[in-house]
Amino acid sequence: MSGGAVGRLIGVGTGPGDPELLTVKAVKAIMETDVLAYFAKAGRRGNGRAIVDEIVREGTIELPLYYPVTTEIEKDEQDYISQIGDFYEQSAKAVADHLEAGRTVAVLSEGDPLFYGSYMHLHVRLAHRFPTEVIPGVTAMSGCWSQAGIPIVQGDDVLSVLPGTLSEAELGRKLADTEAAVIMKVGRNLPKIRRALAKTGRINDAFYVERGTMSNTDMRRLIDKADDVAPYFSIVLVPGWKAKP
Amino acid sequence: MSGGAVGRLIGVGTGPGDPELLTVKAVKAIMETDVLAYFAKAGRRGNGRAIVDEIVREGTIELPLYYPVTTEIEKDEQDYISQIGDFYEQSAKAVADHLEAGRTVAVLSEGDPLFYGSYMHLHVRLAHRFPTEVIPGVTAMSGCWSQAGIPIVQGDDVLSVLPGTLSEAELGRKLADTEAAVIMKVGRNLPKIRRALAKTGRINDAFYVERGTMSNTDMRRLIDKADDVAPYFSIVLVPGWKAKP
Ligand SMILES: C[S@@+](CC[C@H](N)C(=O)[O-])C[C@H]1O[C@@H](n2cnc3c(N)ncnc32)[C@H](O)[C@@H]1O
Ligand SMILES: C[S@@+](CC[C@H](N)C(=O)[O-])C[C@H]1O[C@@H](n2cnc3c(N)ncnc32)[C@H](O)[C@@H]1O
Repeated sequence: MSGGAVGRLIGVGTGPGDPELLTVKAVKAIMETDVLAYFAKAGRRGNGRAIVDEIVREGTIELPLYYPVTTEIEKDEQDYISQIGDFYEQSAKAVADHLEAGRTVAVLSEGDPLFYGSYMHLHVRLAHRFPTEVIPGVTAMSGCWSQAGIPIVQGDDVLSVLPGTLSEAELGRKLADTEAAVIMKVGRNLPKIRRALAKTGRINDAFYVERGTMSNTDMRRLIDKADDVAPYFSIVLVPGWKAKP
Repeated sequence: MSGGAVGRLIGVGTGPGDPELLTVKAVKAIMETDVLAYFAKAGRRGNGRAIVDEIVREGTIELPLYYPVTTEIEKDEQDYISQIGDFYEQSAKAVADHLEAGRTVAVLSEGDPLFYGSYMHLHVRLAHRFPTEVIPGVTAMSGCWSQAGIPIVQGDDVLSVLPGTLSEAELGRKLADTEAAVIMKVGRNLPKIRRALAKTGRINDAFYVERGTMSNTDMRRLIDKADDVAPYFSIVLVPGWKAKP
């Protein structure tokens, strides 16, 4: 906190869940920051915040950013779009106030910040106005395929990262045209994902991981998963590499 | 080294280059291992080994695995395939000897081990025979888009990871059918990559990063790069996300 000068914005990747998968750089940034910001559902503490629990210094100013809307509203509805837009504006404002007062603000982001992370909504609003650094993190997909011991791509393989929110037709079309795939945002999309994998003949290769690298993780071949209940933190992996060498 | 019991194989991701981007778990594994193995060009020390220089304990047994062939032979030639196959077999044997003697072997892998990493060639040969753990790492692409401050994917965006070794036609076809792309293995493939980007109208969005997160890094928009000289450690990013919120 140096008088006059503005503070620094730092997007910090927390990795997939295991606190030991934080980078050395992320640990330092979290320990040294004036303000620690993180997105969370109202009333919850947020998964990113839980991951760093052991290392937050006493006296750190905490700035939880609580989502105003839940999954109850459909994402395409005008209501959702305007509410969430307002929320990101207000969040950026709250962070900017600290930066203008000369305080460093570290924003936690699960996995890697610029890879489907909420931090991106602050980044696009603030990075042109304040000195900004992004500390990359281990992505959820790397955490999951490592835990499962699944080689994902090698040599000339293409990897397609597909949000499970895509339509069944679109998922199928993409799955038919790639060596390897990672399907993110599984949750309630699991039945649709199964159908797309089955239709493209890839269901037997698919591997399911929930809460990868966390203490309550679970994983199995997708065909061995009996139900269609998947938490928010779950992923489907379709490995590409089979040939040796 | 416990009498009788076999040792543990650990694939350790070293991240993209900056030693501070090692995970806490990777640092511990490297400091504690009996044997430190890594792939390198003959006579060189290897980039992965250089990243961890500060933390290797004195007395650690080093096991460099030197590639027998360079890029002088075409990859599809029978000669290359048999030489490299023999090399991976011998390397796996050298690692297995230590494991059988009860020693832990940590194998370094730049970025993330199971994402186009050489470690995979040992993994497929040894993981079914010895207790094995893979410690994920920050990938090169995460390191590069973070350093450049480029949001890569958000929401329903698809990310395609494309090896620059693909044909121009194949690169073009894939680029035309994805929101975001990462092109790996740039090096001598840069002219071809440029042509594929130009034909699909994406060259103005493309960003070039070499030696991301390393001290001698360089980066710029691809259209602002005057020559076609790119080192092995270079990548092209085509961001997908433009909309707000
Ligand atoms: C908004 S995205 C954030 C991705 C994150 N920034 C990253 O780098 O991986 C959230 C999705 O990531 C995946 N995810 C995140 N953490 C996970 C974990 N520990 N295990 C499995 N999937 C996870 C799930 O598919 C989830 O729906
Ligand atoms: C065999 S692949 C290894 C990828 C690695 N396992 C990972 O997780 O990113 C090698 C390619 O990764 C990319 N790469 C690795 N390190 C890089 C860096 N520091 N900057 C830019 N590209 C890098 C280059 O495209 C290079 O040709």
